[in-house]
Amino acid sequence: MSTTLITGGTVVSATGRAAADVLIDGEKIVAVLAPGSELLGTNLAASVDTVVDATGKYVIPGGIDAHTHMQLPFGGTFASDTFETGTRAAAWGGTTTIVDFAVQTYGTKVPDGLAAWHELAAGNCAIDYGFHQIVGGIDDESLAFLPTLVDEGITSYKLFMAYPGVFYSDDAQILKAMQVAADTGLLTMMHAENGPVIDVLAQQLVDAGKTSPYFHGKARVWQAEEEATHRAIMLSNITGAPLYVVHVSAKQAVEQLAAARDNGFNVFGETCPQYLYLSLEEQLGASSEQWGDFEGAKWVCSTPLRSREEGHQDHMWQALRTNDLQMVSTDHCPFCMKDQKTLGLEDFRKIPNGIGSVEHRMDLMYQGVVTGEITLERWVELTSTTPARMFGMYGKKGVIQPGADADIVVYDPNGHTSIGYERTHHMNMDHSAWEGFEIDGHVDTVISKGKVIVDDGQYLGRKGDGSFVKRGLSQYLV
Amino acid sequence: MSTTLITGGTVVSATGRAAADVLIDGEKIVAVLAPGSELLGTNLAASVDTVVDATGKYVIPGGIDAHTHMQLPFGGTFASDTFETGTRAAAWGGTTTIVDFAVQTYGTKVPDGLAAWHELAAGNCAIDYGFHQIVGGIDDESLAFLPTLVDEGITSYKLFMAYPGVFYSDDAQILKAMQVAADTGLLTMMHAENGPVIDVLAQQLVDAGKTSPYFHGKARVWQAEEEATHRAIMLSNITGAPLYVVHVSAKQAVEQLAAARDNGFNVFGETCPQYLYLSLEEQLGASSEQWGDFEGAKWVCSTPLRSREEGHQDHMWQALRTNDLQMVSTDHCPFCMKDQKTLGLEDFRKIPNGIGSVEHRMDLMYQGVVTGEITLERWVELTSTTPARMFGMYGKKGVIQPGADADIVVYDPNGHTSIGYERTHHMNMDHSAWEGFEIDGHVDTVISKGKVIVDDGQYLGRKGDGSFVKRGLSQYLV
Amino acid sequence: MSTTLITGGTVVSATGRAAADVLIDGEKIVAVLAPGSELLGTNLAASVDTVVDATGKYVIPGGIDAHTHMQLPFGGTFASDTFETGTRAAAWGGTTTIVDFAVQTYGTKVPDGLAAWHELAAGNCAIDYGFHQIVGGIDDESLAFLPTLVDEGITSYKLFMAYPGVFYSDDAQILKAMQVAADTGLLTMMHAENGPVIDVLAQQLVDAGKTSPYFHGKARVWQAEEEATHRAIMLSNITGAPLYVVHVSAKQAVEQLAAARDNGFNVFGETCPQYLYLSLEEQLGASSEQWGDFEGAKWVCSTPLRSREEGHQDHMWQALRTNDLQMVSTDHCPFCMKDQKTLGLEDFRKIPNGIGSVEHRMDLMYQGVVTGEITLERWVELTSTTPARMFGMYGKKGVIQPGADADIVVYDPNGHTSIGYERTHHMNMDHSAWEGFEIDGHVDTVISKGKVIVDDGQYLGRKGDGSFVKRGLSQYLV
Amino acid sequence: MSTTLITGGTVVSATGRAAADVLIDGEKIVAVLAPGSELLGTNLAASVDTVVDATGKYVIPGGIDAHTHMQLPFGGTFASDTFETGTRAAAWGGTTTIVDFAVQTYGTKVPDGLAAWHELAAGNCAIDYGFHQIVGGIDDESLAFLPTLVDEGITSYKLFMAYPGVFYSDDAQILKAMQVAADTGLLTMMHAENGPVIDVLAQQLVDAGKTSPYFHGKARVWQAEEEATHRAIMLSNITGAPLYVVHVSAKQAVEQLAAARDNGFNVFGETCPQYLYLSLEEQLGASSEQWGDFEGAKWVCSTPLRSREEGHQDHMWQALRTNDLQMVSTDHCPFCMKDQKTLGLEDFRKIPNGIGSVEHRMDLMYQGVVTGEITLERWVELTSTTPARMFGMYGKKGVIQPGADADIVVYDPNGHTSIGYERTHHMNMDHSAWEGFEIDGHVDTVISKGKVIVDDGQYLGRKGDGSFVKRGLSQYLV
Repeated sequence: MSTTLITGGTVVSATGRAAADVLIDGEKIVAVLAPGSELLGTNLAASVDTVVDATGKYVIPGGIDAHTHMQLPFGGTFASDTFETGTRAAAWGGTTTIVDFAVQTYGTKVPDGLAAWHELAAGNCAIDYGFHQIVGGIDDESLAFLPTLVDEGITSYKLFMAYPGVFYSDDAQILKAMQVAADTGLLTMMHAENGPVIDVLAQQLVDAGKTSPYFHGKARVWQAEEEATHRAIMLSNITGAPLYVVHVSAKQAVEQLAAARDNGFNVFGETCPQYLYLSLEEQLGASSEQWGDFEGAKWVCSTPLRSREEGHQDHMWQALRTNDLQMVSTDHCPFCMKDQKTLGLEDFRKIPNGIGSVEHRMDLMYQGVVTGEITLERWVELTSTTPARMFGMYGKKGVIQPGADADIVVYDPNGHTSIGYERTHHMNMDHSAWEGFEIDGHVDTVISKGKVIVDDGQYLGRKGDGSFVKRGLSQYLV
Repeated sequence: MSTTLITGGTVVSATGRAAADVLIDGEKIVAVLAPGSELLGTNLAASVDTVVDATGKYVIPGGIDAHTHMQLPFGGTFASDTFETGTRAAAWGGTTTIVDFAVQTYGTKVPDGLAAWHELAAGNCAIDYGFHQIVGGIDDESLAFLPTLVDEGITSYKLFMAYPGVFYSDDAQILKAMQVAADTGLLTMMHAENGPVIDVLAQQLVDAGKTSPYFHGKARVWQAEEEATHRAIMLSNITGAPLYVVHVSAKQAVEQLAAARDNGFNVFGETCPQYLYLSLEEQLGASSEQWGDFEGAKWVCSTPLRSREEGHQDHMWQALRTNDLQMVSTDHCPFCMKDQKTLGLEDFRKIPNGIGSVEHRMDLMYQGVVTGEITLERWVELTSTTPARMFGMYGKKGVIQPGADADIVVYDPNGHTSIGYERTHHMNMDHSAWEGFEIDGHVDTVISKGKVIVDDGQYLGRKGDGSFVKRGLSQYLV
Repeated sequence: MSTTLITGGTVVSATGRAAADVLIDGEKIVAVLAPGSELLGTNLAASVDTVVDATGKYVIPGGIDAHTHMQLPFGGTFASDTFETGTRAAAWGGTTTIVDFAVQTYGTKVPDGLAAWHELAAGNCAIDYGFHQIVGGIDDESLAFLPTLVDEGITSYKLFMAYPGVFYSDDAQILKAMQVAADTGLLTMMHAENGPVIDVLAQQLVDAGKTSPYFHGKARVWQAEEEATHRAIMLSNITGAPLYVVHVSAKQAVEQLAAARDNGFNVFGETCPQYLYLSLEEQLGASSEQWGDFEGAKWVCSTPLRSREEGHQDHMWQALRTNDLQMVSTDHCPFCMKDQKTLGLEDFRKIPNGIGSVEHRMDLMYQGVVTGEITLERWVELTSTTPARMFGMYGKKGVIQPGADADIVVYDPNGHTSIGYERTHHMNMDHSAWEGFEIDGHVDTVISKGKVIVDDGQYLGRKGDGSFVKRGLSQYLV
Repeated sequence: MSTTLITGGTVVSATGRAAADVLIDGEKIVAVLAPGSELLGTNLAASVDTVVDATGKYVIPGGIDAHTHMQLPFGGTFASDTFETGTRAAAWGGTTTIVDFAVQTYGTKVPDGLAAWHELAAGNCAIDYGFHQIVGGIDDESLAFLPTLVDEGITSYKLFMAYPGVFYSDDAQILKAMQVAADTGLLTMMHAENGPVIDVLAQQLVDAGKTSPYFHGKARVWQAEEEATHRAIMLSNITGAPLYVVHVSAKQAVEQLAAARDNGFNVFGETCPQYLYLSLEEQLGASSEQWGDFEGAKWVCSTPLRSREEGHQDHMWQALRTNDLQMVSTDHCPFCMKDQKTLGLEDFRKIPNGIGSVEHRMDLMYQGVVTGEITLERWVELTSTTPARMFGMYGKKGVIQPGADADIVVYDPNGHTSIGYERTHHMNMDHSAWEGFEIDGHVDTVISKGKVIVDDGQYLGRKGDGSFVKRGLSQYLV
């Protein structure tokens, strides 16, 4: 097995930083050491196979993106990144683990969906990956199957309060699933939007000729998110099952989470870079069209981009500081404009929902450090340590300590990254939601399980490097 | 310099745990390593001077008690622990750093108070110590002196909204001090009780013949704490200075902090073991006297013990889980019954305020892990990591990582500790507020800056081992 | 036309009281006058047909019970009071107007249900009556019919978030109905309980052999009411339609209403005497059975009686004082034990839901004046003035002023009323939920549209006295 | 005694309206009658001395302005309206009762202040008047005197948390006074601003050369009002004494009141027209000066005008609708620019604080009816009925009912009123804070105790018409 020493850097954790070297033996970290290459008389640098010089740089645990949708079927098409292209892009961006969603929809069976997902991913990933299980409409069969997921290392599952007929579960179904979750330790993830209400509003907009992408956001009113968030919280409270709300975008939804947390409820929330940086106003764009043009389709995602005037974006940053939101994932769900987004040219409801960001999350969040929104430590916590704890991987992932997988990123605060399609991105998309974003930092070196897979602008990994991670129960829960 | 290897234990941090060995060289931790005594061919155990076997035990950063009052002058007497007796007792209990309060009262000068405190502590401490600065009634001279504290390594100061004529600052004084704090980075600590209101109520109780210790708690109504907490928060908000509220005991005060934090205010709170475990009802005791007897004087402290019926204790535990309170300190302020507490035999107002707990904090909080109130990680965070971050010592203290002071406790979850005067305590007190408490764990070994000072029931330290810690600005603040 | 003078009493309104005489001419009040029978030289007492001496008594606008269910079909049986028996009982108790619910269930048509209700009531009532319209599952046909209700004088309609398959509307249906309400001025009344969730919990209890009436309350958890209340509020907010929540019983539901009202939302709530006086603990009873016996069926109603330990009852009284709840209705829905409640002997879900109180509301609420829970003025406001304003009858009903219907009650604060089946009640029920309640007051005289129908313990009215009241839009809404 | 009949109008009360005639005999209302001048055969119009035709107009209880400061000593000068000029102006504007503040400041005695106020008012008023008692710094002597106020018909007193050295009471003083209030039924009125904090901020602004009137508002930050409001609420809660907060202007202060009220606390608040219509931004004006010019002095009042951008004005209107604020008074405190406001030309702190509005309150609030902010009924409630109930005058004042004083205004919704100095105002001021306000309504006729004192633009009253009103305890309190 090969040994590597990362020297001269500043190791950053969720609680602080240290000038320290990191010694890797094979796939694992074996020591964190005072800088200087000598330990009890042994010259470490001279003893290892590889030395990575991290002088002046941050050494952080590799990013964990706990919300991706490679190859997701949606509206008759599929998310455009395969596990191969998507995990490679993730690696380029300093993410060394993803947790993707195995999918079961109405009319199919959970174990079949899960098996299909294993098939899609196995042997194709550049980095380690785990699965949450989407259950599309709980029934007795899926209820009975849920407990077996724990042994499969799939300790979280996701329900939808939106998308009737596809993924939607009603309150009775959710209640039953949460009862199982309470018994088994499974973590319930929730897409919290009142779908039936949104569908009425969307239909009315379309009936009124308001079909452009902009109206996607107008139909998905904040009240629908706030309401569903509150409802999910109360179902969680009835059953005693903890709750994790995905892609929170409305400040009022955060307020519901915050109030519940103040009362001691075990409820959690993630947000995504798009809800921190982008807004409905920008989706409307500078178009001469009254209701925006189809360029807005790039930013059609659910939950939707929200009005900056109403202050949602600022509130998301604040909630990341106050820990009312605990994590940042991407909800990476890429669709090309060509042949995909354009399905909705005449009707925003037919635009596949999703933004591709798996490659940019670490950079975009680091920019929040630069602008003073969050601390360097909170950056590591939001993007790696808490995802690992929340989803039962801490110790193996999410931390630089002996025994952990050697998933490490060397990040250069003096580097620079320009985001945009024309330039550098590696996701399988024909556009970027992030065109023009400039980051005052750079992912220099990415190490996955002891192997350098990105270095100095070169990709050194290959598909199949990544393995399936059997996750334990959430370690974050009190 | 001597080297030590702690082997076989579970290193616990604020975010998780790892099976790891810790290597100490001189006063510092130099490496955290995968267990097993070999590193790149070197047999570490064979190479070090001392091996501490921590098999089956927790290896944690030494406790930091950020709120002690050695030798505090109060009501004509002095807290009964000197720096020598108090820090020794702390060491016995797994605390390796205290932050005591240098005292300035009305009519004296801040630099004189600070100099006196250095005099009292220097050469007498068993463990490292820092100071906060009490300012008793802000005036122009103390305002001018405040900024110099930062260079002295005293980066926090404390004001009182209680004790008119002794420590009390009015709102105008507090405002001015906070303006200085906002400019300099000093952290403002606040005793948040409305003293003028309490003094009226106390006088009225005494006038009505209600003089027993029990009425100490009846006079210090929760409204007085809630009100002052809110007022301090708003003064903080006007000035932009962060706020740290000491010894929070009323659930309504916590709610004020929680609401402010939800709104993004930089406000923090500590509680103490007595507010988690003890109550006003117990202070009333089993006495045949209607209003309790003088035994209740043991538990006269300010803020007071609060009614269990009103749910304050449960709410304090909850707030520790929800991070609406961030730390647990002791407010160690010991007075003997003889000649001290008895000053108030005829009038509860003359009972010196304080409980001695510096020796028991780590144990008492560990018992919260045993009973499921908090996690093992949260125990470490509340008692060591956050105190270090909050008060500018992290990196040197509060964490087990290379470069940190080797302040380490080996804690045995299979051990047992019985608390009580007759048995074991080392504080200079003729009674215990904690008589009869049983802990399902035990402080086995205490290492301070690389030196084993407590081991297997033996005290191996000596006065003068501890040094003054010059603290930096708070690292906890967003 | 006949003239009547009520002399010597204290006229009580929602805002205060006055020593005043009331002059009635035919069906109307024509003057409120300074006491003493002379006006500009005319001796009034000598000039009128009838003089009612109200010396020492309160003269109040007749009670308006805005929530009754005469002859309601439920679970295969019908509420046991006809319009004849029910309105006569109401009259005995000082209520001179009811607003009953015309019923449409799944599979029937709204106009048919309304016509049927007119049929049931016409010619049978002792007092005036109006209708709200129940719509059981909104569809396009009922949506189209809703606006016509306004012209029919039926300016409020009720939806159910409970009772799937019978009355239940889902969120999309509710949203559409509320949009119509916002356009037309109809007031949306809501049974706010999450029925699907309750049905799951109830099934699980029954499956576990927990079939006694007590478990009715255990299945209908407060979270289901709080959740539905919040959801209804948000649907109201999306549409701009005001909301009126019926039979609020959970303090957490009140808190949702209060928070929404503080934010300026037009949301209202009523409670009922049973939620002020009775509790789940009493429903469990003194039975030797662990889970209570079937006596508890008397108090099976929905929303259910709630735990006194949790403080719901006290909170309802407080909410009546703070105006977070605006009205008290009865939800009068009587079922006999024999052949009706006993349908659920083996399964609490088959017990017809309902308590009979239409006769006792004025007395039960007056007792709240006696015990200091509410003021005399608030009694009149809660039971008459606000119901009139809320449901578009003020001016004609709910106030003693010229031009109003002469619906007047003379209430004796020195009288006494004992409630219970064996003694006096006139409702068509074989038991009473109120057995043993003692009231320190008495309904002496009841005048309906100028006619004395109850006097000194004698019933002088007859069926057909009461007419249908075409109501206008709500006058209470800001 | 003379008799008057007001015919053809719409009588408006706090709960509704009625087409009704009002019969006055001497100083009292003796009947409210169905329209048409016949009662039991008597032709009323023919029988009375005077007929006032109110066809097409509103007949409302005369306005009650519960917060005026005639001749108030402030900063070395006196409010420019005497009781003669001030009450005459009030009458012009439809206000028939004022409650002024008898003043005691530091170094004087309460009974002397009260006697002086009686002296100033007696024989000089055009309308009825009552007094609240200002107590400037509670001491033992004033504490002892407080209970005697009840017998004097002065059932409310006011304390200040601002103006140290003049009116200021500290928390201990407030607590003691509130204890007396709890025992006696006195209502505690509070100027809730943290004066010591404001004084520091004001001094710092002046030191920085920021001396223009605009900085009056910048010094009196909303936090100072919010904080003091919360503090007053908690002192009220400790003592059990109800609290009435005067001139609420900050939305955050309203939120404190609302939260306390939701919790069942007996706390109340008034706002004033200036906080509904005017803002700090307008005070800055269109001046070319960066910090506004001295024109801004017109609007220097305390609490200050607040930023419209922050939404205070909208929130005040909302709070009037939600009843989180219960009343609108003027805080009429007029100072001329010449020789008075100009005292502060060099230092905003020397500008006498106050705006003159006693003449315009009824009109300004009616405009809120026109613009849809409040209902017609709420207008009457806010300006007359609640003031009467709150301050123990209901029955005599605040309502049109038999036995009440015949204080009545005939208000024409088809009239128009232009406000401004050059045109019509009768207050003794050389400017107007309300220059340019246009009102879509008009005070046509004002009747005070049966005497027409304003009619069709003519003033028919004279000084001495008004008498001192001995008030009872608050009737508004639950």
